[in-house]
Amino acid sequence: MKSIVVHSGGMDSTVLLYKLAADGDELKTLSINYGQRHAKEIDYARTLSEGLGVEHRVADLRSLTELLGGSALTSSEIEVPEGHYAEDNMKATVVPNRNMILLSVAAGWAISSEFDRVAYAAHSGDHAIYPDCRTEFADALDSAIRLADWREVSLYRPFVDLTKSDVVSLGAKLNVPFENTWSCYKGLELHCGLCGTCVERREAFHLAEVSDLTAYAPEAPSVEEMVAADWKLT
Amino acid sequence: MKSIVVHSGGMDSTVLLYKLAADGDELKTLSINYGQRHAKEIDYARTLSEGLGVEHRVADLRSLTELLGGSALTSSEIEVPEGHYAEDNMKATVVPNRNMILLSVAAGWAISSEFDRVAYAAHSGDHAIYPDCRTEFADALDSAIRLADWREVSLYRPFVDLTKSDVVSLGAKLNVPFENTWSCYKGLELHCGLCGTCVERREAFHLAEVSDLTAYAPEAPSVEEMVAADWKLT
Repeated sequence: MKSIVVHSGGMDSTVLLYKLAADGDELKTLSINYGQRHAKEIDYARTLSEGLGVEHRVADLRSLTELLGGSALTSSEIEVPEGHYAEDNMKATVVPNRNMILLSVAAGWAISSEFDRVAYAAHSGDHAIYPDCRTEFADALDSAIRLADWREVSLYRPFVDLTKSDVVSLGAKLNVPFENTWSCYKGLELHCGLCGTCVERREAFHLAEVSDLTAYAPEAPSVEEMVAADWKLT
Repeated sequence: MKSIVVHSGGMDSTVLLYKLAADGDELKTLSINYGQRHAKEIDYARTLSEGLGVEHRVADLRSLTELLGGSALTSSEIEVPEGHYAEDNMKATVVPNRNMILLSVAAGWAISSEFDRVAYAAHSGDHAIYPDCRTEFADALDSAIRLADWREVSLYRPFVDLTKSDVVSLGAKLNVPFENTWSCYKGLELHCGLCGTCVERREAFHLAEVSDLTAYAPEAPSVEEMVAADWKLT
């Protein structure tokens, strides 16, 4: 199969990239610059893709930031919330229709490249907060993508029923260099250890019983403190 | 209803804008700059929207042109084909997944604006050449857009079963100033009268028996000559 992987540079899409490489797919990767504070994740994506000898491209959609409105991920005026995704304040990290926009661009590249599918790494833990990570959304979008050209391109999302810790377990088996992936929404020098995606990252390593080699900011609590606080330290 | 109209500045989306204004919708319009040669259509869209007191915005997606590959609409190296859409050479005007990309951006703006729907003017004549103008594509994309946020946004396409001449007839009833719309793919000073969209434009006025006030290039054949040649002069 020829697959375009939507590759953020984070853990999930990197595990997906390694899985498809192990499956023997012909691969290209696409990262999206949508004006996120943590655009440094794109450098991680590039390095990881190049390490596997995979062509990596960036779609620059920064011009849409103003149109799509204020999310904590794209606006310097809205603070990145800290805590667990289960908490209400995490809604500030939603970028309206982000996934449809980025998947439609990836599908356009798949059509022009005559590739078979777009692969992305939505997993079951995403659903609670992001409407455009739901299985039924992805199913409907898959139907649309299949009809977007005369030749069928599909949307492949093998992690949709996995938890993030399942994804970490799979990545560990595939020798994914997790320490070379980037999650933190704040995009500072080190992972903050406290924003939604950092908490989710730490929780996933903990549940999967895989060593977390990520360098977190020194002021972040230890994983033992996070566990004791039921991942709700803030 | 609160509707965002995808407004190219061409005839169909202008009739849609006038129809929704007549229906009493609260409106905003969105044009997409995807690197088309005929980006001058966006100036027509802006003028038409402002004439109705409607907020008009442009999403700048020129950065995607290279990724999506060579279409005659976006590449100076591929000539814009002349003739009727029924002819095979018109495939050179397809931009991969263009409609999903632009509708997903419009849907993102609808979500952030808390609007009810995205309206676009695909009509039955588009289907023969553009896969992403098919009813079944639009149906699937509508399902996905409805799931893209917790609050439902829909995709409204009232012209999907109309011919372009039906759209012209409706526009004439609504006093649409067709002479202030732009179709021609070549984007020169005057409509060339010979590219796919110019031929379709002229045919639609002819079939609808509405006067065509468009200024075509002097070297273009007359409408009588076009009719005599069954719209296949080239």
